[in-house]
Amino acid sequence: MKVDIIIHGGHMLTMEGKGVGYIEDGAVAIRHNRIEAVGTSKEIMENHTAERYIDAAGKLIMPGLIDAHIHTGLSIFRGVAQDMSDWMQKGLWPFQKHLRPEEAVKGSMVNIIEGIRAGTTTFCDYDGRMDLIVDNYKQIGARARVAEMVNEIPANLGDLPVGELYPFNPSIGEEKLNRNLTLYDNHHNVEDGRISVILGPHGPDMMSLELLGEIKDHAERLDTQMHMHVAQGDREIDQMVKRYGKRSIEFLDEHGFLDERLIAVHLTEATQAETERVARSGAGMVYCAGSIGIIDGLVPPVQQFLDAGGSACLGSDQAPGNNSNNMFNEMKFAAILNKVKYEDSRVFNATQSLRMATIEAAKVMGLGDETGSLKPGKKADIILIDLTAPTFFPVLTKPIRNIVPNLVYSARGDEVETVIIDGKVVMEDRKILTIDEQLKISEAQSAAEDIAARAEPDILKADSDILKMVREDLL
Amino acid sequence: MKVDIIIHGGHMLTMEGKGVGYIEDGAVAIRHNRIEAVGTSKEIMENHTAERYIDAAGKLIMPGLIDAHIHTGLSIFRGVAQDMSDWMQKGLWPFQKHLRPEEAVKGSMVNIIEGIRAGTTTFCDYDGRMDLIVDNYKQIGARARVAEMVNEIPANLGDLPVGELYPFNPSIGEEKLNRNLTLYDNHHNVEDGRISVILGPHGPDMMSLELLGEIKDHAERLDTQMHMHVAQGDREIDQMVKRYGKRSIEFLDEHGFLDERLIAVHLTEATQAETERVARSGAGMVYCAGSIGIIDGLVPPVQQFLDAGGSACLGSDQAPGNNSNNMFNEMKFAAILNKVKYEDSRVFNATQSLRMATIEAAKVMGLGDETGSLKPGKKADIILIDLTAPTFFPVLTKPIRNIVPNLVYSARGDEVETVIIDGKVVMEDRKILTIDEQLKISEAQSAAEDIAARAEPDILKADSDILKMVREDLL
Repeated sequence: MKVDIIIHGGHMLTMEGKGVGYIEDGAVAIRHNRIEAVGTSKEIMENHTAERYIDAAGKLIMPGLIDAHIHTGLSIFRGVAQDMSDWMQKGLWPFQKHLRPEEAVKGSMVNIIEGIRAGTTTFCDYDGRMDLIVDNYKQIGARARVAEMVNEIPANLGDLPVGELYPFNPSIGEEKLNRNLTLYDNHHNVEDGRISVILGPHGPDMMSLELLGEIKDHAERLDTQMHMHVAQGDREIDQMVKRYGKRSIEFLDEHGFLDERLIAVHLTEATQAETERVARSGAGMVYCAGSIGIIDGLVPPVQQFLDAGGSACLGSDQAPGNNSNNMFNEMKFAAILNKVKYEDSRVFNATQSLRMATIEAAKVMGLGDETGSLKPGKKADIILIDLTAPTFFPVLTKPIRNIVPNLVYSARGDEVETVIIDGKVVMEDRKILTIDEQLKISEAQSAAEDIAARAEPDILKADSDILKMVREDLL
Repeated sequence: MKVDIIIHGGHMLTMEGKGVGYIEDGAVAIRHNRIEAVGTSKEIMENHTAERYIDAAGKLIMPGLIDAHIHTGLSIFRGVAQDMSDWMQKGLWPFQKHLRPEEAVKGSMVNIIEGIRAGTTTFCDYDGRMDLIVDNYKQIGARARVAEMVNEIPANLGDLPVGELYPFNPSIGEEKLNRNLTLYDNHHNVEDGRISVILGPHGPDMMSLELLGEIKDHAERLDTQMHMHVAQGDREIDQMVKRYGKRSIEFLDEHGFLDERLIAVHLTEATQAETERVARSGAGMVYCAGSIGIIDGLVPPVQQFLDAGGSACLGSDQAPGNNSNNMFNEMKFAAILNKVKYEDSRVFNATQSLRMATIEAAKVMGLGDETGSLKPGKKADIILIDLTAPTFFPVLTKPIRNIVPNLVYSARGDEVETVIIDGKVVMEDRKILTIDEQLKISEAQSAAEDIAARAEPDILKADSDILKMVREDLL
């Protein structure tokens, strides 16, 4: 059969089966935007011819990585809020209150560039003004499963005293929900299905039970999922207990929100019993190792969730928390932080991390038939990684195979050379072909400087730990 | 004054003072192998002319990183021993027993390439057959402070039953000590002082008290330091208690080994009281965050050591444990693992990590007058980092400076563009000029494959967790 692209002669991880689906001399045939065939080079070359051949000698062929939870609109604040107390109120908020939608969009593009350069092909972006941000994905050619973040909180939330109940404003809620629904109407399954839309309630503490119920009804009607922060921090639990006399997970369960439509993000504050309750409900979990480690100094109960039979995956979260949006970073952090949590080197092995950034992530995000592994019929989201980089040295296949451990524990992300998304070569020789990277970065840099200038009085007023460090030349 | 190189127009971190010594429009003048002057571009350009000017616009100028504890001779085993129990006996040893010195040297070179590419300019290498490995540093042009690892253990240590007292063989001890002393005689302060030699007792459990005393006498005579594993694991403590009825630190203290000549590596098993005892003695500490996290699932008491007034720094340790020898990785892991240990986001901030990979590392390793900061009179070990990389976006200087957090939490290491060591440009545009990188990597790759083939029967016999994973297609 004639196909568009054949990639051949590389070490290959299909991520099919229970493990990593290793093929020593692997090849994949791509036709239009789908994977036509997967096998050894011999098998593929015997049965197909192609418009273009990509020789993957010395390279690793594998599915693109999936970032299951990212707020790209906050990328413009990377590095301004860490190592501190009150990161939201004193770190992020003094900047964020000055953010204009067009600036968030510019920052988002750099975040997407960062991700693609580190092999991310699918971004599960969850942010405000996704109607604007979605254009970045169209332009750069990445796969995106986006949700508008819906709450009914006034814009000045960050100015509220800590501990006070959030005031709900139903008209804000309706406006944001409408934005999510319009996003769905206008963008769901556009670009040959490369862009898809799900619903994005911000968190159980961020809206009335009525609004949350309304979103759930829409999810049923549209037969789609809800991407939502759940038990994400002590602030959330405090709000829930004050408002309803119950913690988040009990509340969600009692009102019928725990089911396979729910993608529960973080679960940082979930107890063992609560974690098991969510896992058994069929809801998925997203674990953001770097972000929760750096902002909260905590390791959420992801291993308990898995042990209870749940499906979980990895996300990089927002830049001003994690500071990094690179799934290599997340795979590594996830493994080491859980080893340390359990004081056991065998916990959270490299394969588990890799699966949670590929096939398991696809399943959790409702994309299991589309991406996350190399399988005929799936969309062609494929990355090529340079195995001659020092970080992959040595490459051994017999009797021990060490590519996966070196991918998770050693690689930095820059070893990714080629990125194919939906059958199109988006990055080649480490250069993104679809946009002008340096131009996008410099436009976003100017926007960041503008925000910092406008925000200066609020930043000075917040008098954060970081500002003190700057004053004392400690930063 | 006429100098050789002026680097100008970049953001600069001198790492002088208590913090990071930030200069917005910084410049540094290099004459022969030393830093002649440091200041603003205006100051430097007014008072100096140079043979060569390096424009650092959009770049960060900072001291090269120091890897205070690395066994480069084990690099050839990267990725073969993690996520497992008995990593030494079942993971590393079946390979290591087949390692030939010339193969260790080839692997070491790739490790050094990996480090330089990620901004490491000083390697405190501690391994067997350093007489051969040291040539790699001469050839590539890196700064090295090396020690021959001295013990009196027969070569088949990995074959001994766990829990049995190590047999000491004084003739092995004398041979290895002589190798360390010969190394000192032949290589200490060669290459204009770029290569220096210290002493390297393997650990208090690895030799008799007599031999350890002999090494200490040589350290006094030569007025030098001892690089030594201390309380590195439960196996060491078990040996010490069985042999002497005491734990390592009590033993070392009673026999006069705790003082400013000691560089104590790991302290993984040190109690709070023992940690304080070492810190107060004036000994330094090396903390290997990634290695101990991955091999042992533990976070050594480095913060307690610092709180007790000790000086500590970071090291990447050996590739088959950590899998990565990149100080960006270490800075990031050190910060996040300690935040999680203390459940406090303020613990181990980015500046602390960065200082422990530069100026504090230089002090601990006895190189405080030579390297670790940009200061007139110090050796010119300088790196330039591309701040237009997405990982550094945005670069803000006012009112918050975010370069240091993004360096520690976001950068991957590949943003390092130029590496100057001892006044010589060793890497430019990410290309190492002094050796043929791809040739060195492919030579070492062949050696690794040879070892794996020779070691196959032992690897099969060890029947490790990893081998099972390979068999089940989980790797």
